[in-house]
Amino acid sequence: MKSILILGGDGYLGWPTAVFFSKRGYSVTVVDSYFKRNICKNHNINTLYPTLDLVEKSKIWYDLTGYEIKVVICDLRNHEEMRKLFTSSIKYNFAIDHKFTGIPETVIHYAEQPSAPYSVYDYKSANFTLINNLSVTNNLSWTIKEFDKNIHIIKLGTMGEYGTPNIDIEEGWIDINHKGRTDKFLFPRQASSLYHTTKIMDTDLLWYYVRTWNLKVTDLMQGPVYGNITTDTEIDDRLKTSFHYDEIFGTIINRFLVQAVVDFPLTVYGKGDQIRGYINISDTLQCIYASEKNPPKNGELKIFNQIVETFSVNQIADMIAKAGNEMGIKVKIKKIDNPRKEKEKHYYNPVYKGLKEIGIKPKLMTNEIIKKMIHEVLKYKNNINKDKIFNGIKW
Amino acid sequence: MKSILILGGDGYLGWPTAVFFSKRGYSVTVVDSYFKRNICKNHNINTLYPTLDLVEKSKIWYDLTGYEIKVVICDLRNHEEMRKLFTSSIKYNFAIDHKFTGIPETVIHYAEQPSAPYSVYDYKSANFTLINNLSVTNNLSWTIKEFDKNIHIIKLGTMGEYGTPNIDIEEGWIDINHKGRTDKFLFPRQASSLYHTTKIMDTDLLWYYVRTWNLKVTDLMQGPVYGNITTDTEIDDRLKTSFHYDEIFGTIINRFLVQAVVDFPLTVYGKGDQIRGYINISDTLQCIYASEKNPPKNGELKIFNQIVETFSVNQIADMIAKAGNEMGIKVKIKKIDNPRKEKEKHYYNPVYKGLKEIGIKPKLMTNEIIKKMIHEVLKYKNNINKDKIFNGIKW
Repeated sequence: MKSILILGGDGYLGWPTAVFFSKRGYSVTVVDSYFKRNICKNHNINTLYPTLDLVEKSKIWYDLTGYEIKVVICDLRNHEEMRKLFTSSIKYNFAIDHKFTGIPETVIHYAEQPSAPYSVYDYKSANFTLINNLSVTNNLSWTIKEFDKNIHIIKLGTMGEYGTPNIDIEEGWIDINHKGRTDKFLFPRQASSLYHTTKIMDTDLLWYYVRTWNLKVTDLMQGPVYGNITTDTEIDDRLKTSFHYDEIFGTIINRFLVQAVVDFPLTVYGKGDQIRGYINISDTLQCIYASEKNPPKNGELKIFNQIVETFSVNQIADMIAKAGNEMGIKVKIKKIDNPRKEKEKHYYNPVYKGLKEIGIKPKLMTNEIIKKMIHEVLKYKNNINKDKIFNGIKW
Repeated sequence: MKSILILGGDGYLGWPTAVFFSKRGYSVTVVDSYFKRNICKNHNINTLYPTLDLVEKSKIWYDLTGYEIKVVICDLRNHEEMRKLFTSSIKYNFAIDHKFTGIPETVIHYAEQPSAPYSVYDYKSANFTLINNLSVTNNLSWTIKEFDKNIHIIKLGTMGEYGTPNIDIEEGWIDINHKGRTDKFLFPRQASSLYHTTKIMDTDLLWYYVRTWNLKVTDLMQGPVYGNITTDTEIDDRLKTSFHYDEIFGTIINRFLVQAVVDFPLTVYGKGDQIRGYINISDTLQCIYASEKNPPKNGELKIFNQIVETFSVNQIADMIAKAGNEMGIKVKIKKIDNPRKEKEKHYYNPVYKGLKEIGIKPKLMTNEIIKKMIHEVLKYKNNINKDKIFNGIKW
């Protein structure tokens, strides 16, 4: 039985990833500090529907399927807490068998503060984002060096690391010809938030450890994810992953879906010509799974661009408006002053072939999928707090 | 009277920088947490000669010259401590006039853990290096955004950020032509220690804030510094800057000078063909001064490569051996297994024109300068603890 450790297992992607691997016969342990829940409490943010905590969800998952997901609640900024996960001094907050599972073959590292607006909200949230995100990656690297350099780290990066350069975006690496000489480098990166900048730093940090200690790392440059439906969590509503529509943690498509159903004009920032790569949450799971099955060699940093298609903000707004209108919901679109500092008109041509080469079958956005998502959101329409949709966190 | 704030004012470069600006009529405040002194205490490291603390040195400087250098001892990882430096709630540990000087025109930011070996010594020193270096830069950026975006930040980077690429190293920026399109980027960087990697991250962090908040930053990519003689500190031995010859904080030339006088064969790591750019400590002061006089515009990140010439390790060892032998000291050279992970044979062609263009007159290494430095070290020969010269911190 292959053993897998998921850091940040309570998150939007962490929980469905845990369920996905559990269902496929892996021995899964999830770890979280609940900081996102705490931020939400402090900012009075509710998700579209309440989400049970990890212990509760894991109990339900076990009761329904007989599969055990072990749970540890701890703060991985603390190196000793990280070390414990790799030793028999681990204390599970939930387990059926409390015996230590053993050192994992793979660690999936989602344990980062994932919000761009939150990262620049004030100096405290900035410091938290910077220190949390880099400490966890650093502690993980040192721990893996200590215990077993063959453990595969799968780390979530972001397409935002690249920003919007005027040249084609390659998958992580670029050959630069300069004054008649050539070398291969990490693709140059320049992000548009502090959060995204911590991901650039993470990549530099991991690449340093990979080449110094021969670690094995896959860095997945993911675009904004949308949706909440993943096959394995569909068996019970209580297993659904969290769905944020607030300005801090909501990703653009999910926010727009909620705005559509409560007659809140879709908030297009600036001109709306900002293009990004997008991915359905169920494809995220496919990508993580394929990455797990195709580990790098020791001393190799594999980078994939984890998107399946690109859209401008205007295109997204138009697609959602069209689907909504066909469902009898009147969807308005409103261009507002861009609270973000970003290019609103830019070249964008990213390569994203690597994941398809290892077997991903992309689930592209369709009118039908949007309607299914709107239908899902409509079920919880009464929970939506319109005050939390947009307050204009600026940077 | 122009006001200048020097973070890390107790360090090898911090103190002589303070004296330099003080002598030239600037109102100078130095800040330090003494962490380097504490590390030295914990690791039982002594410098070539004892160095007085900042309060003692500033008192002497005032007694001898009538110039006041104000001193604050605090930990700038704490954002509130950073903020206080910009307000009348500042508490000086030493001052002649305890009234707040006012918001500085320039901040020189040296407040980082500067040792590559220490940064990879163990997970604690790694975490400290990462968190200290990035927190201080982050806290400084937020504070300057809050108080006055026209304050010029001069930040010490390192040539080590670039590593040893197979293409010419430009000054900070590069135009990349790729598949028929062009854009300008930070020069790609890939360092050979965690410390150097934190400097890459620093540059990314500052560049993010520069373009987001229109800050004014100069990032100086400095090579290893050598020497301890700076004109203004020569008036009294008690004002000399610290001189480290230990494996943790000693820079290569200073270490070799000490090894030469105590008959400890010069420790050439590996083949000795590693080429780096070097600079005399008195030129560091010139460069900082010229940078202060030539601030960037708001929204501009100026990058200079702060070196004046390049040498291989073998060349340095040979120069020191030659000078020593001419002085009647028998200097041996010994190639030892490289404890570092670095290329020992590589292309190296860095550009370093920018600082000359703003007036720097480089003080190049000569046989005479080496002899003067050996003479200086000989004065303190009896203080040297040979056990601290090399213990082989590996990475």
